[in-house]
Amino acid sequence: MLVKNIDELLSGYEGVEKYLRERAVLIAEHAVDMANPEKLVKSYLYCRNGTLKVKNCGDFEFSKAYVVAIGKAAYPMAKAVDEIIGDRIAEGIVVTKYGYSESRRVGIMDVVEAGHPVPDENSMKAAKKGLEIAEKVGEDDILILLVSGGGSALFVMPERGISLEDKIKTYKLLLKSGARIQEINTVRKHISAVKGGKFVKKVRGKVLSLIISDVVGDNLEAIASGISVKDPTTFEDAVKILKNYEIWYKIPESVRTYLERGLKGEEEESLKVDLENVTNKLICSSSKVCEFAAKKARTLGFTPVILSSVLEGESKDVGIALASIAVEIRKNKRPFNPPVALIAGGETTVTFNGKKAGKGGPNQELALGFAKKLEESKVDGICIFSLDTDGTDGPTDAAGGLVSSDTWGRIVRERVDPLKELMMHNAYTALKAGNALVITGPTDTNVNSIAIIVISRYYDLIMYNLIIDYLFGLLI
Amino acid sequence: MLVKNIDELLSGYEGVEKYLRERAVLIAEHAVDMANPEKLVKSYLYCRNGTLKVKNCGDFEFSKAYVVAIGKAAYPMAKAVDEIIGDRIAEGIVVTKYGYSESRRVGIMDVVEAGHPVPDENSMKAAKKGLEIAEKVGEDDILILLVSGGGSALFVMPERGISLEDKIKTYKLLLKSGARIQEINTVRKHISAVKGGKFVKKVRGKVLSLIISDVVGDNLEAIASGISVKDPTTFEDAVKILKNYEIWYKIPESVRTYLERGLKGEEEESLKVDLENVTNKLICSSSKVCEFAAKKARTLGFTPVILSSVLEGESKDVGIALASIAVEIRKNKRPFNPPVALIAGGETTVTFNGKKAGKGGPNQELALGFAKKLEESKVDGICIFSLDTDGTDGPTDAAGGLVSSDTWGRIVRERVDPLKELMMHNAYTALKAGNALVITGPTDTNVNSIAIIVISRYYDLIMYNLIIDYLFGLLI
Repeated sequence: MLVKNIDELLSGYEGVEKYLRERAVLIAEHAVDMANPEKLVKSYLYCRNGTLKVKNCGDFEFSKAYVVAIGKAAYPMAKAVDEIIGDRIAEGIVVTKYGYSESRRVGIMDVVEAGHPVPDENSMKAAKKGLEIAEKVGEDDILILLVSGGGSALFVMPERGISLEDKIKTYKLLLKSGARIQEINTVRKHISAVKGGKFVKKVRGKVLSLIISDVVGDNLEAIASGISVKDPTTFEDAVKILKNYEIWYKIPESVRTYLERGLKGEEEESLKVDLENVTNKLICSSSKVCEFAAKKARTLGFTPVILSSVLEGESKDVGIALASIAVEIRKNKRPFNPPVALIAGGETTVTFNGKKAGKGGPNQELALGFAKKLEESKVDGICIFSLDTDGTDGPTDAAGGLVSSDTWGRIVRERVDPLKELMMHNAYTALKAGNALVITGPTDTNVNSIAIIVISRYYDLIMYNLIIDYLFGLLI
Repeated sequence: MLVKNIDELLSGYEGVEKYLRERAVLIAEHAVDMANPEKLVKSYLYCRNGTLKVKNCGDFEFSKAYVVAIGKAAYPMAKAVDEIIGDRIAEGIVVTKYGYSESRRVGIMDVVEAGHPVPDENSMKAAKKGLEIAEKVGEDDILILLVSGGGSALFVMPERGISLEDKIKTYKLLLKSGARIQEINTVRKHISAVKGGKFVKKVRGKVLSLIISDVVGDNLEAIASGISVKDPTTFEDAVKILKNYEIWYKIPESVRTYLERGLKGEEEESLKVDLENVTNKLICSSSKVCEFAAKKARTLGFTPVILSSVLEGESKDVGIALASIAVEIRKNKRPFNPPVALIAGGETTVTFNGKKAGKGGPNQELALGFAKKLEESKVDGICIFSLDTDGTDGPTDAAGGLVSSDTWGRIVRERVDPLKELMMHNAYTALKAGNALVITGPTDTNVNSIAIIVISRYYDLIMYNLIIDYLFGLLI
């Protein structure tokens, strides 16, 4: 069971509303369960007669196997590979975030825990070991890369002459300057010895990279800074970005000097072509998780509708917009006829605008924004479950929110002002008061957030009330 | 032609992109044209053998007709009624906003222009005249009420003992206190002699109220403060609201005294029952406008999808959320197969959060937010037209924005930073640079905002490029 506090989430909710809350949870639980990294790798990979077979991707013959697993899902992914071809692995390293592994070794492979989101010495140790392994891979061998979100910080090797400290300083300056994540990554790729495809350049044998995306839109270049993927950006781009944000003269001299040499063609560019020996295979993404949810929704009798797998925007307002669509369906039966399950995957944002940060996270705010519109529309028969698939929504112990028609009213009856809390970015407090705060603990999965919106038919309500009335009649 | 600067909007755009921009404009033009108040009244009302017939509403026999038209669409609505039964109108008054009428009389009816959004002496004069007319309506007569948005300020009669100044002061205190619009209306209805159904209480004959909604969700109580509609709120509610927002002791004494008498049952409550002689008929709403757009979209070859007719949320982020859905359709052909026209009606919001207000409006920001997501997704074949149906989006001369795949890039090429302008609430400047700012002038219509999103098939692009290549081949 994914959701730890299901009793609390259902307590005080009745009839169709309770029914919908249960269904929303069941759908989300199935989706997160199917997106389990260990299960995913096992569903894609198997070994027969010494040949490694990858679903929808082809067969790989090899002599020895090497493994480099990087990211928040590195440990369960490596465990699956070890189960499948453990006896043929010559050497391997598993790099993950502190607290994200269960032991120091997976089969023959070493496990290293390192810093995230800010890299540390262990991130460099891991990359050094990774590069050593890459160089050992012979022409008949295969290197299996297992890539998931968080890899940019966990696997770090600055180009020569640049210290880890200088690299971190540059990163922090970029963050502060307001540069976009794509721009930050462009610079990172040009001062790193592993990012932007540079890592796989060093491998003589085959490379099979299995990738779990935590990036909206699944741009492979962006996941874990694309250690196995070509990079269209150049030294010119990197320098231009630093100059645009007026931090060119603020970054450490070692970085500036290196980039200047790069401009003159004296340093190695990132990977610019698709390498024949490298296969990149996306094995899970927001889109996939939406499909898992859709499948479960259908078995529960809801018409599944994947509204988006690239959902973005300010959480509260995305919640209001999604509710605007759900209300239309419930009231006017368009553009879909209930019972419907709307499914939206992606990553929404909470912007503080100088206000003090309350307690909450994007999924909690999305759910509470949804509740606001639901309350104003005076419509029942709608329930949303918005959660971060990794089980941690913002800096809280909650995974998200489970909101239905009466939730707003319940919060008010507990003498909490949901509108005020929403505006103060304090969704946690409001949802908690309405028995709407979902606790899952860590899930081992990290594939963005997902919102499940279940909408009942008019019929459901009528029938339910008739049955209750009938049973009640029998009692008295 | 609704759109005045169509040449500018198409200039520099080519091929399928131009095609989509034209289609989005055609769809919106049709919807706004169909929502023209004069046309609407004529499509609902006709007179045969002395009987007034109202579509989907029944027949009305009457001896004399009286007319009270209130709101931003009062003038064109009254014109239509005058054309249909002008010879049977005994007396009438048409109250609209300054600049919203074309002459001092419509047939036998007087036209009064008054203050909006802040009422003035003319608003009171108009209500006084309206009440006089109401009392003249005999048992065999009919009073035709023509109600549209803006009526709350244009038709004002404070209860006895309260001056217009005191009423305005109370209104402004409520606005400043952060009270919600529903709460403000509750107070307004309990210090007004016409709002909350009090106006129609005074009529002995039949009342036919034709209503054009400018309120999201079409709650009739809320449109022009519901002069012909019952009101569920009470004196207790009104006092509670003023106390909750801690302005009970700040409001003028005359208002406090009146409300205290109301609490004791010494003053008249708002209308609490449906009156048998009153018929309220909604003749246009956001939902209807969406349907008009849908119909046109179908004739142009797009599958119409009404996503919502109650769209709310912060404009920029609703734009991003809508783009998230459009991108899903274009890339993954779900939940609909292109060519699709997504249609969403409602009213989004621009929140300044203490930032200096730039130049723009909700529809311009929605379109620019949409453009941002479109740019990041690197998807073509999508175009959005977001506009306020009244032709005025925010405090600007623009009606909205017309954005397609290349718009963001065009803005950048004009050396304007669209992201910066979006964050500074300066969408006007950015859209103008990208030939994406739509100018219509006043439209006579006022039915919220509408966004039309047209999405082409992959096929369209392929075919188009093939044809161009072929023609180009013939030329050289």
